[in-house]
Amino acid sequence: MKLATIRTLDGRTRAVRVEDDRLVDLGAADLGVLLGTPGWEERATAATEPVPEVRGAAFAPVVPRPGKIVCVGLNYRNHILEMGRELPEYPTLFSKFVDTLVGANDDIVKPPETDAFDWECELAVIIGTRVRRARGADAEQAIAGFAVLNDVTCRDWQFRTREWLQGKNWEATTPLGPYLVTPDELPGGVRPALEITTRIDGETVQKDTTADLLFDPVALVEYVSTIVSLRPGDVIATGTPGGVGHARKPARYLEVGQVLTTEITGLGRCENMVVADIPA
Amino acid sequence: MKLATIRTLDGRTRAVRVEDDRLVDLGAADLGVLLGTPGWEERATAATEPVPEVRGAAFAPVVPRPGKIVCVGLNYRNHILEMGRELPEYPTLFSKFVDTLVGANDDIVKPPETDAFDWECELAVIIGTRVRRARGADAEQAIAGFAVLNDVTCRDWQFRTREWLQGKNWEATTPLGPYLVTPDELPGGVRPALEITTRIDGETVQKDTTADLLFDPVALVEYVSTIVSLRPGDVIATGTPGGVGHARKPARYLEVGQVLTTEITGLGRCENMVVADIPA
Repeated sequence: MKLATIRTLDGRTRAVRVEDDRLVDLGAADLGVLLGTPGWEERATAATEPVPEVRGAAFAPVVPRPGKIVCVGLNYRNHILEMGRELPEYPTLFSKFVDTLVGANDDIVKPPETDAFDWECELAVIIGTRVRRARGADAEQAIAGFAVLNDVTCRDWQFRTREWLQGKNWEATTPLGPYLVTPDELPGGVRPALEITTRIDGETVQKDTTADLLFDPVALVEYVSTIVSLRPGDVIATGTPGGVGHARKPARYLEVGQVLTTEITGLGRCENMVVADIPA
Repeated sequence: MKLATIRTLDGRTRAVRVEDDRLVDLGAADLGVLLGTPGWEERATAATEPVPEVRGAAFAPVVPRPGKIVCVGLNYRNHILEMGRELPEYPTLFSKFVDTLVGANDDIVKPPETDAFDWECELAVIIGTRVRRARGADAEQAIAGFAVLNDVTCRDWQFRTREWLQGKNWEATTPLGPYLVTPDELPGGVRPALEITTRIDGETVQKDTTADLLFDPVALVEYVSTIVSLRPGDVIATGTPGGVGHARKPARYLEVGQVLTTEITGLGRCENMVVADIPA
C-alpha cells in the first residue's frame, strides 16, 4: 500500500492511497493525522472514494508536520569504513525541524549564506504506533512504512561548531516523499533491501543498498524509543551512504538550477530543482 | 505581564494571565495557541475574565507544544573560560523534542538507563512573531518573553557519540515555566540581567547572571532565524552557566527523591521532584 499527502487545488492537503490510476481519499487532512487515528491501516485499506479534485494535485511532504524528525549519522558500513572510521557502538543522532521539509517535487532553496550545499540520500522510516522502549516485534510493528528523504546539508555551517544541527536545518531543504510504502510491499519488509541513489542532472553521485545499514530501521526504533516516545507520523532518517560532495576531491556541491533526484527502488523518487533564496 | 498555560480540573489546559491574586482567562487552549494569534499582546492585556475553575490548577509547560526547541551550548563567558576553552565565534546549537517538557512543579523522570543525570539551569526565550533573517529591532520585537528551563541531561548518553542530542532528549526531563514574563517587566528588557540559580534540596549548585551570556537573546534570534523561521511559541534555551555536576571533582548527579529548584529572579521558579521511571 502506498500512502501520501497531496495538496489539492483549494490550498489544502488530503491523505490519500496512491493507486496506479487514481488517488483514493482517506478522509484525513494529511498522512500524519491519519497515522494518529486508531485502526488507520484498516481504514486506508478499505477506502474506495477517489479524491474529488485531482487535477493539479502535488505531493506535500509525506508527513507534513512530524512531531519529531530524528536523523542518524554514520550508518552505512562501507561509507564508515571508506572514511577510515571504526564501526560505532551506538547510532549518532541529531534532528531536523519541520520547517526544513518540502514535497517530492518542490524546489529546494539554496540559501545565499552557504557555499557548500551538499546531498545525502536517505531511507526514511515513518512511525505508525506510539512506542516507548519498544523491543523486537513491538519495534517492527511500530513502523508504518518507508519513504525517500534527502538530508541536504550546508557543510560550512555543519562544521562551524561541534554540533551538526545548524548545517542540517535550513528552511525548505529536505524533500520527503513522494509516498509511504508499507513494509509488506518491500523485499526485506521492515528491514528493506533496496537500491538507493542520488543523481544530479541525471548523473549518479550516490548508489548503495539500504541492506548495508549498520543500525537497521528496527534497531533504530528500539534505540530512539528507549530515550523518548516515538509517535505516529514521527520520522527517522537513517543516514546516507558514501558519495556525498564534501568527501570528493575536489569537493563538489549543489548549484542553483540543478535537479537533484533521490530515488529508492520501490519507494519512488523525489525530484527537486535547486533554486536561489530571495530573502524578503 | 506574566502569561502561563495551566491545567484545569477537567483535564484541559488554558492560557492565562497570572495576577497576584487570580488567573485571568485569555480564551485560548494554551499559550502557544495564544502567541499564534495576531494581536495576542493586546488581547492578553485587555482580558478581565477570571478562570472559572482555579482550584487544583497546575502549571503546564509554559508553551506545551513548541514547534521547535533550539538549545545553545557553551554560552556563559565565565563558564567557557573556566573550562579552559576560547570564546567561540558562533553559537553551538542542538535541539530538544517536545516530549522532554514538563511543567514547573511536575516530576522529572530519571530513566534507569542513566547513571549521570545532571542539571543545567537556563534562561528560555519564547518567540511571539514569525521571523526569518531578523535583525536588530525585528529580532527584539520577535521576543514575546522569558521563562525558566532546566536542560536536565544524561551525561553518559550525551557523550556516547559526537552529537549531544541523545543525552538531552529523555522524556519528561525538562521543566519549562512557570510563566512567561514580558521584556518590559525585566531589567535589561530583551537582554535581561537576572540572577539564575539551581538548588538541590535547597543547596545552591549553580549561580550566575544572565547578563554574562556571550550570545544574548537578540543575537540568538538573529542567528537562528538566519537558518530557519522562528514562529510564535518556539523556544530558545540559551545555555547554562558553570556549576554542573559533571564538571565537579568528584562528579555529582541528581538522585531519585531530590528536589531540583531552578530559579531566575523575576521569572519565578521551577521546583521538580526527581522520580524513578517505572517502565511499562
